[in-house]
Parts: sequence; C-alpha cells; structure tokens
Amino acid sequence: MEAFLKKKPGPGVERGTVDKPTISDTEVLVEVKGAAICGTDIHIYLWDEWAANRIKPPLIVGHEMSGKVVEVGKDVNHIIVGNMVSAETHIVDQTCLQCLTGRKHVCQNMKILGVDRDGIFAEYVAIPAHNAWKNDSDLDPIIGAIQEPLGNAVQTLLPINNVEDIAGRNIAVIGMGPIGLMAVAVAKELGADKVFATAGGRNKTRMELARTMGADEVFSARELDRDAIVKAIQDSTDGNGVDVAIEMSGHPDGLVTAFEALTLGGRVSLLGLFPQPFEVDLNRLMIFKAATVYGVSGRLMYRTWFQVRGLLRRPKLREKIAKVVTHRLPIKELEQGYKLILSKKAAKVGLTPQW
Amino acid sequence: MEAFLKKKPGPGVERGTVDKPTISDTEVLVEVKGAAICGTDIHIYLWDEWAANRIKPPLIVGHEMSGKVVEVGKDVNHIIVGNMVSAETHIVDQTCLQCLTGRKHVCQNMKILGVDRDGIFAEYVAIPAHNAWKNDSDLDPIIGAIQEPLGNAVQTLLPINNVEDIAGRNIAVIGMGPIGLMAVAVAKELGADKVFATAGGRNKTRMELARTMGADEVFSARELDRDAIVKAIQDSTDGNGVDVAIEMSGHPDGLVTAFEALTLGGRVSLLGLFPQPFEVDLNRLMIFKAATVYGVSGRLMYRTWFQVRGLLRRPKLREKIAKVVTHRLPIKELEQGYKLILSKKAAKVGLTPQW
Amino acid sequence: MEAFLKKKPGPGVERGTVDKPTISDTEVLVEVKGAAICGTDIHIYLWDEWAANRIKPPLIVGHEMSGKVVEVGKDVNHIIVGNMVSAETHIVDQTCLQCLTGRKHVCQNMKILGVDRDGIFAEYVAIPAHNAWKNDSDLDPIIGAIQEPLGNAVQTLLPINNVEDIAGRNIAVIGMGPIGLMAVAVAKELGADKVFATAGGRNKTRMELARTMGADEVFSARELDRDAIVKAIQDSTDGNGVDVAIEMSGHPDGLVTAFEALTLGGRVSLLGLFPQPFEVDLNRLMIFKAATVYGVSGRLMYRTWFQVRGLLRRPKLREKIAKVVTHRLPIKELEQGYKLILSKKAAKVGLTPQW
Amino acid sequence: MEAFLKKKPGPGVERGTVDKPTISDTEVLVEVKGAAICGTDIHIYLWDEWAANRIKPPLIVGHEMSGKVVEVGKDVNHIIVGNMVSAETHIVDQTCLQCLTGRKHVCQNMKILGVDRDGIFAEYVAIPAHNAWKNDSDLDPIIGAIQEPLGNAVQTLLPINNVEDIAGRNIAVIGMGPIGLMAVAVAKELGADKVFATAGGRNKTRMELARTMGADEVFSARELDRDAIVKAIQDSTDGNGVDVAIEMSGHPDGLVTAFEALTLGGRVSLLGLFPQPFEVDLNRLMIFKAATVYGVSGRLMYRTWFQVRGLLRRPKLREKIAKVVTHRLPIKELEQGYKLILSKKAAKVGLTPQW
Repeated sequence: MEAFLKKKPGPGVERGTVDKPTISDTEVLVEVKGAAICGTDIHIYLWDEWAANRIKPPLIVGHEMSGKVVEVGKDVNHIIVGNMVSAETHIVDQTCLQCLTGRKHVCQNMKILGVDRDGIFAEYVAIPAHNAWKNDSDLDPIIGAIQEPLGNAVQTLLPINNVEDIAGRNIAVIGMGPIGLMAVAVAKELGADKVFATAGGRNKTRMELARTMGADEVFSARELDRDAIVKAIQDSTDGNGVDVAIEMSGHPDGLVTAFEALTLGGRVSLLGLFPQPFEVDLNRLMIFKAATVYGVSGRLMYRTWFQVRGLLRRPKLREKIAKVVTHRLPIKELEQGYKLILSKKAAKVGLTPQW
Repeated sequence: MEAFLKKKPGPGVERGTVDKPTISDTEVLVEVKGAAICGTDIHIYLWDEWAANRIKPPLIVGHEMSGKVVEVGKDVNHIIVGNMVSAETHIVDQTCLQCLTGRKHVCQNMKILGVDRDGIFAEYVAIPAHNAWKNDSDLDPIIGAIQEPLGNAVQTLLPINNVEDIAGRNIAVIGMGPIGLMAVAVAKELGADKVFATAGGRNKTRMELARTMGADEVFSARELDRDAIVKAIQDSTDGNGVDVAIEMSGHPDGLVTAFEALTLGGRVSLLGLFPQPFEVDLNRLMIFKAATVYGVSGRLMYRTWFQVRGLLRRPKLREKIAKVVTHRLPIKELEQGYKLILSKKAAKVGLTPQW
Repeated sequence: MEAFLKKKPGPGVERGTVDKPTISDTEVLVEVKGAAICGTDIHIYLWDEWAANRIKPPLIVGHEMSGKVVEVGKDVNHIIVGNMVSAETHIVDQTCLQCLTGRKHVCQNMKILGVDRDGIFAEYVAIPAHNAWKNDSDLDPIIGAIQEPLGNAVQTLLPINNVEDIAGRNIAVIGMGPIGLMAVAVAKELGADKVFATAGGRNKTRMELARTMGADEVFSARELDRDAIVKAIQDSTDGNGVDVAIEMSGHPDGLVTAFEALTLGGRVSLLGLFPQPFEVDLNRLMIFKAATVYGVSGRLMYRTWFQVRGLLRRPKLREKIAKVVTHRLPIKELEQGYKLILSKKAAKVGLTPQW
Repeated sequence: MEAFLKKKPGPGVERGTVDKPTISDTEVLVEVKGAAICGTDIHIYLWDEWAANRIKPPLIVGHEMSGKVVEVGKDVNHIIVGNMVSAETHIVDQTCLQCLTGRKHVCQNMKILGVDRDGIFAEYVAIPAHNAWKNDSDLDPIIGAIQEPLGNAVQTLLPINNVEDIAGRNIAVIGMGPIGLMAVAVAKELGADKVFATAGGRNKTRMELARTMGADEVFSARELDRDAIVKAIQDSTDGNGVDVAIEMSGHPDGLVTAFEALTLGGRVSLLGLFPQPFEVDLNRLMIFKAATVYGVSGRLMYRTWFQVRGLLRRPKLREKIAKVVTHRLPIKELEQGYKLILSKKAAKVGLTPQW
C-alpha cells in the first residue's frame, strides 16, 4: 500500500510503498478515509530535538484519522466490518495503576500511533479494537479525523472536577491554534457568558476564525501588551476576572495572562507546551490566587469521546468545527499541508485519500 | 401602599392598603417593578393543608419579584439607591452549620418571603441586603422576577457534583411546568445532545412550548403509557438510556419514568413535590442502577444566581425564557392570573406594577 | 476436582467431583486458598425467588475467594504463576458505555462468578486475568477473600463525589451485617468524628462487634424505637444530625432512620436491598432535605480495590476486619457455615481449603 | 491593657499599654487565653520586604489565638459571653463574588488580624462575630490557638475536589515546618497508606517529630539528594509514585520533588511560599503528568473548621498535634519565642496569658 514515512533520521517525509498491515486477534484493520495534520506531525517533519529522541525510523507518520473497518480480529465483538471509526491514538496497557483507576490517558506504558508505532498517513492502518471509536455513519471523514484535538479542547474545558464553571461563566482561551479555536466554540456551546480569545496576532486567519467561533472579544498580542489584555478582561468582567482560563499558546506570556486574568479561586487548564522551562512566580499566580490547575494530556478514554460525539451532533458546533479546517488537500499533497501550517496561513489541514 | 394579602385563614386573597414597610440597618427597600406567580402562591390561594399549617395571616403574599432599590440601611455597602434587584426569597440565619458550609439554601432557620414574612405582591417590600441580587440594568423586570424558578432549573441540572454530564449528554426532563420548560431550554443551552421532554398532556400550551424550548422529542402521558415512553427514550439513545433525568412532574409515574429511562450509573435530580408518599422500588430504581440522586431545594446562594446572570446574557436563552411567560397582566388582575394557571392555559404569569 | 454445586433447581447444595477448569488465552487458573460466605450464597442455598429466576444449574457456587495462580493464559502479561490473587467477581464486557466511562461496576452485560458462571467453592477456578487482583503476598487468604464486601463498605462510604464528608464528620451506619460492621471500622479509620451504629438487635454477636469496630454509640432497634434512635443521634450532634448516613439494613425503617438522622444537605448511600417495594415520603426524606443519595452496587473497578489494599496495610484496620470473621471452617463443612449465618450466631464465615 | 506592638517601621516588637478595644454591634470582645507564633509573625518581627510593604504601624501583632468571650455586640445572636472561641483571622466582606460563591478564603477585600488591623498578642481583642469560632469548652487554649495552621494542613490535604485520594493512598509531605508536621499526622489519621516526609534536615527536632506524627519514611535533604529521595519514594510505591504530594517547604527543590514523586494523573497542593520566582518545567511537571494542582490560601470558611473540630475530638490526633507545640512560654517572653523559632530549635511555640 501507499504511505508517507520517515525512512531515516532527519527532516522531511518520503512517500513509499509498504506491506499492508496484518492484524492480531484483538485488532481491526481500517481503510483511511480522512486524516489531518497535528502539531506533533510538524515536529516530526522538522526533526526537532524531541523528534530525534523519540522517533525510531522507519515509521509511517500521522495519527489523526477516520476510516472504514475492513477486517476485524477474531476476538473483537463490538466492531464489525463496515463500521466507520476514528482512532484514539493512545495505545494503553490496560493493566497499570492509571489504566485501572480511570486514567488511561496517562498509561505508564503508552504507545502513540505515528510516534511509537506505524501511523495513519497510509491507505490502511491496524489499530487495537479498544482504540477504534465508532463514528456516526454520516460524519464527514475529515471531521471524524479531528475528533482527537476536539477532544483535547473538551477535556481542557471539562476536566474531571469542578466543571460547572462553564455554564454562565466567563472564560479566557489563550492561544488560537486549532485546539484553541475549537475551545472557543465549545465554551460558547456549553453556555459560557463571555469568551475572551487571545492570539499571537501573526496569523490573521486564526484571528478571524476566533470571532467566527464565537469569541466575544479577540485580543492580538501584537497590538496589546499583556497588561492591557489583562486589564481589558478585568474591565469586561466587573473587575472579577474570568472564572476559567485555558492556556493553549505554549508561550510564557500566555501562562501569565491566564493566571492574571483569573478570578481568585478560579481554574486554569494547561494544554499548550512551552519551548523550554521558564521563571514562574508560583506564589502570585497559583498560591495566593488559590487557583486549581489542571495539566491536560490526551483525552479521557472514553468519557471525553462520548461527549465529543454528543457535541458533534449539534449542528451549530459541527459547522463551526468544520470551519477550523481551513484547507482540504489530497493526501498526496501532504508536504503542501505542512508548508501551509508552517507559513501561518492555515488553521487545521485535512487530508482526503487521493494517492 | 397597595398590596394583596391573606387577611385571615381560608381560600382567596384580598387587596388592601397597608403601611409602607420600614427597613433595618441591614435591609433595603425595593419598589416592585415586576412579579410572577409561583405554584406556592396557588397553594396559598387555595388554602390547602400545607398552607393552613404554615401561613399565619395577615400576610402580604407573593415572592417572585424584581424592582428598584429606593432606600438602603446604614450598614449596607454593596447596594445603592437606584440598583435594580431581584429577591432571593430564602432568608437565612448565616450562622447555622448549613450556612457556614456552603449550603445556605437549606438553612436550619429559613424564613421565606410571602410565606413566613410579608411578600411582594405590593408596591414596596423590605428585604435583607443579603437577599437583594443586583440585576443587569437592562433586564426586563418580568424576567428579573422569574430568576428564582430559572435558578431552580439550573440548580436541578447542575447540582454540586458530577455536572459534566450535561455537555454532549442525553437528558430527560419529566414534567413541563414552568421550571420543566426552562430546564429544557437550559439543557440545550448547556450543550446537551438529545433532550427528551415528557408532559401530562392536558396543557397543550406547555406541550408546544416544550418544542419551542428545544426539546428533541416531546412525549404526552395521555398518548403514550410509561413503558412506551421509556422504550422510545431507550431507542433514541442506542439502548443506553439518558445520562441525566430530572423529575419535575411531582407524579409517581414521573419518578419511575425518570429512573427507568436512566442509564446505569446515571444521575437523577428530584425537584417536583409528590402529593403524598407512595410505593417505591428502591432496589430496582436506585440501588441496582447505581444512580446518584439529588434532592433539590432552592438554589445555591449565590453560585446559581451568578450562573443565571451569565446565562441570561445569552440572547437565545433569554428569548426562550421570555416565551415561558405566556401571560403578562397588571398586578391588579392578580386573581385572573391565578385562574389562568388553574385552568391549565398558562405556563408562567408575569405581573406589572399597575395598581 | 472437588466442588460444591447447585446440581438442580431447589434448596440446598451438593458436593461433587467435576473437571478441573481449563483457561482461555486471557484467563488465569487459581487454586483457592481462602473463601467466605456472602449473603448472596444464602439466597442461592435457600433457593428464593431471586435465585430461582437467576441461577441455571448445574453451577459451582460461591464467589468470595483468594488463592494462588497456577496457570496463566498466553496473552496475560501482568499476572504470573505464583501470584496470590483475589477475584473481582463482576465479569464485564469492557466495551459498553458504562465500561468505557469509568463505571465497569454497572456493565450492561455483567456476569457474576457463582451466579452466572461457575464459582469458587471448589479447588480451582478459572477467571479472566482482568478480574484477578494481586494481593500482598503476606495477606491472610481469608482476609483476601473478603475484600469484595470490604470494598462495598469502602465504596459506600466513598462514592465518586463529595467524599470529604468522612474526615471529622459524624456518620450513621444503619444495619450491622458484615458490611455494616466493616463500614463502621472504615469510617473510624478515615477520620470520622462520631460513628453511630444501629442494628436489629437479635444478633448479639454483631452488636458487640459494632463496638469493637469503633462505633461511638450502638443502638438496638429492639430496645429503642426509630424516633428515639433519631433523637439520640440528633442530641449527640448538636442537633444537626449526621453528615453521612449509610443504609445497610435493607429494612424500610432503616431507610427512614438514615434520612431522618441526616443533616440538611447531607449524603446517604444505599447498599442494603429491601425485601419488597414500600411507601417512601420522597418529599420529606430526599427533596426538602436536599440530600445527595448514592445507590451502590459493586465496587469501582479498580479504584476501590487500590484503596482497600492501602487500607488493609494499616494494622489496626486489618485487625478489626479479621474480627468480623467470627468463624473459620474447613470448606468441607460449608453447610455448617450456612447454618451459623442463618441462626444469627455469626458475622462473616471464612472457609479454608480442607476438602 | 497590655499588648505587643510594632510601634514604628523596622525590626523588632515592643510591649506597650493601650486602650482596651471597643466593639461594634456585630463584633465580640475576647479575652486572650492562648496564642501561638506563626511564620508570618516572624516576617513582621524581622521587618522583611513583604512586611515593610504591608504593615502600617502602630499595630498590635499576632493572630493565632483562642480565648473567652467577655462582651458581644447587640446584633450578635449565636455567640454568648463565656463562650470559648478561636479567631478565623481572615476578615471578609461577605459581598464579593468570592464570598458569595463559597470562596470566602479568597475574599477580594480581605483584612487580616495582626497584619491589616490590630492582632491578638494582647489581653483582649475585638473580632467580628462571623470570625469567632466556638471551641469545645474543654479544648486546651493553646491547641485552640493553632487551629488555623491545622486548618491549613487539612485544607491542603482535602481541597474542594478529588479528595478521596487520601484513603488508602500514598502521600508525600514536602517540608516539616509546623504545618507540614500536622499534615503528616492528619494524613495518617485520614486513612493514608504510606506517608513520606521530607525535611531540610537542619532542624533535628522537626525530623524526630515527623516520625512521631506517623511518617512511614522521613528523608533529610542534607543526607539524600533530590533524585535519591524521589527514587526512594518510587521504590516504596511499586514504582507508581505517590497519589498526592503536598508542598510545604517553599523551596524550589521541594516543588520538583513533589511533582517527580507524583504518580501520573495525581494531585499536588501548594501551600509553601517561595522566596522568589524560579524556573519551572511546566511541561514535565504538570502537563505531561496530567497533574491536578491546588494553590492553597487560608482555610474554607467554615467547612474546614468543622472538619478540624471533628478531627480534634479524636484523642490520638489531638495528642499528636499537642506535640507539635514544642515550647509553651508566658506571653511576656514573646521575643524568646521568636528566637527559638529563628534558631531552628522549635516547631510551634505556644503562649499563655501571663503578662
């Protein structure tokens, strides 16, 4: 079959012909119908330090996907040939402390599709049946493919506790990458009062999309400094600050904005990864503020997925999420997709199975 | 000033002229600008057993209201003359175990406006400053007056724990009285997938309003028996049943429907009051189902009020809630309001200050 | 191998020789080293209506057990021959809504050892590796065998939310069966202030054990009527009532006691099963009280098991739990164990593998 | 009356004679019967940067106290002359967002006794009735005085969510100041499995006290480097790490130890204040770990106080807490108390009312 691979260490990606995968008794084989490019794929493409340490070529890359099941292992009962599925790309051992206590998303022995084992920028992929999430049969395959990042947005807004904060609350979303954009849309869909969005400001597409998603106010870090953004948020919330702030920029300034804009005793979720450690005033940001802080990694398997399914059945949200996919390319033009993202012209890039 | 009173024990209500109330150092005086009729008012009007035991005439009746502050006690700092406020009608001691542990709504020494002390079907009312909730200045006074029942709807959907269930979840609302109607609208506003509504079926207005509120399916107990309703809900939820059911009918059949339609490990909130005790199969309904059940009384003071304020700032919800007020009468026609409700022609009846 | 079976419909149990079980690739074979008799076993022994409807003879009975792993299926990685394990006897499908959202204990397709498939009153038993819980190697096999009911006690005291109520709180445990006794010990171990225990009063052993478990006050329903018990609890809690009540009696009076003794806004967990439906005043008991009610079925798989393991490592609790096992018999005297329980002379009866 | 004051900016404290305070209608006058020295008092004594910015002399210093009510304001109903009370020293406005939503401990307009208004190193003190916490009449006044830091320990272990982690869980307490010591004792009292304590190692008294409090293992940062401590904790927890870590050292190394010793998806509470901002690897410590982090400031008013009362009724804990008070001095020797703490020879210093 056709696939895109990292054949050897170093930047770039190559197209190649490889054997169609075989499945074990507990796996399913999926014909890929829709895919999308994640930030992780960019790290692997550019071969940064993280990628060089983690990736063992040769490896089929890519992980966000949906497709049709074409074969099922003999011990698989709940999935049948013909089902449309997406992959939860975190493959877990189901036996560690975390897996046995409702925290599979941080399994001690996690393997990730397209990172630790062959991924999905291919015609077919084999995945454990436990990782195949059944989609509504009428779901657009590209939307199906981006349920993982949408799940991140949902999980960041609705961590395991204290989540009543969304309804009627004021929310700040820091960082307008694809997940930040989706988080704005989800926050409005879940009954937020005001949703404030902040963005770096270089990517005009994303600034505009933030408004389309429903942000009440959109701040550009190019036009306003951090203090001015925090002041504007305080002024729009009777001086209280937001009830919830979610950090998706991966920028130190974004972190400080999130906490400074937060009301006392409020909640911050951290999803964005920072390029390196930096100086943090924990006293002022977390302790005196009596903040609750959630580090977010992955999505709850599968509580978040059920929520995502339900939310995607709401027409308004589905339309908004579709707009986050600014470009749809045939998968043979994968490198063009990488370049669109690197040039800051795209939000999410979807891929259709034309080889 | 003019007021409607229960002057002596027995059915009915009388108009009278009484002294304008005076306020203590910690109270405020409010000129009533909007009011509404609650089910409790009907009990007092009809003088049923509960009313005969609880009410000590003479008493100004009524409790749902909003108005303008015209005088403030000398120890009141956060309310000023001219503020538009609504009353939280539960007056609490602030010193009991419940008040000191975040549960003022079940204060051990609660007094209720229009039940235990003079109410608000009057030109003016004195209330503790602690019970005066500041409204947005542009809020319709009638909508301001029905924030208490709206708060009940919110509190029933979002009790103190486990509330992530709303987002993307399937919900059943049993009983289409005014609070049930508002609960349908709120559930949709908070990101529910499907919302099922059941109604007795005699009040056509309410059946139609249930659809207007956004119910995906509306069942009439006149047309379908309980088993058929439960089956329909199961069929529409992949056989799982609903994640959350809220009981607002006060009918034994409603209770059973709520639990039978519930998924295993789901959540039920009980707000509707039942006319008398009845036989319940706790094993089947609650224990084997591993259900979480919330008895709901009042609203969280003031967490729920902040949520209601935020939700009412969302135009779509505000419009829906306005439609629950099927009639607006000058307050001098109060008895006409009672009759509209008793004749099953109204949902909520609002009252304007024309004496 | 030797085993006790229900060979045909009807009361009683018979000893027999059967084939040693074989295991699938995902199962383990366990040599039973300790067992105990559960109330469910009594229902099956007596062949009551529930048993007659559920049990399909021939069937090896019994489910509470611990033992040594003597064989593992080829796909099992986390259990090895020689491990000491107990069985979680709820065998779940791992694919339904409940299993995928942290609620395996209410799996839609649950099978129970000794009820729906062969149980453990035998020399060997085959169980899914997912159901084999590794014990500390020095754990007494009889204590290992009663971790399921101990888990019920823990799960009843610590349901999924709101559990900070135990620390420094006042607790009522209604019903002094083995799980009620264990619940008293666990509540004291988790930092409760006062623990009140109520018992039917006919079983003197259990009344005495309640004090040994650490109950501050023990009430006998033979000596005090319900109102007197509730009043005594109110008087010992500054008139507030208990913060948490857990119902383990399965008696209608126990239910009412639990709620009447409860503080406003408190929490009740229901574990005891009632012989038949009965009249309940939901308004007074649940709604006006703004109670949170948890129906409890099973134990969280495996959050509760981890907690049980940690708690059993505390010497004081382990000693108390050992005392709940009032009798230890060779398993060949199984019927004598049934009779001890039926004659109200025992709390928990443990069984050692002498055939 | 006699009192210790900061009469003018600068280090030190002076004894003086001042007017006995008068009370408003909502205050009570308390005769101080027991007091204790807090770390905050040391900052004020030494006149560090924080103190110089915050304190406006002249000011009576000190805040941890208990005493007898000798006069009550005319609007005070729940406190009477003769009651033994302690002060919650956070005086709140009761009208801000935080006060109205269960978060008085982070009131937007908080005033602190002995910091923002006259404190309690005096014969008498006037406090709002809302801040007077009634003690059991037989409580040792010195223990009564240290309920605030004990409340900090409880609040750090039991923040508003997710607190079931204590029961049967493994806990690390980083930092053996008085609150760290109390946290060890409380964690064991709440059913923890293993409790690990780490200390700087210079204060031998505190190292020994950590064992007295019930720590299973006590690590000295003088004897083991950070990696060795983390490895020891991992080794003692089957390689999982602790379920909960609480940071009370205020040292950057303590922060890193807390998160490195934490199991994936675990919980960290931060109470210790850091001398200045420092570089933090949020990706590794919080995000990839999917940690929940609670900044802790103060105690829940008054949920934590009720828990503290209940816990202090347990004899074993009360004995342990008494041992944290390593020195009891007549208050006239206050400066000797400061010196004992500064010389690292004391844990908590209690003060009795001998002037």
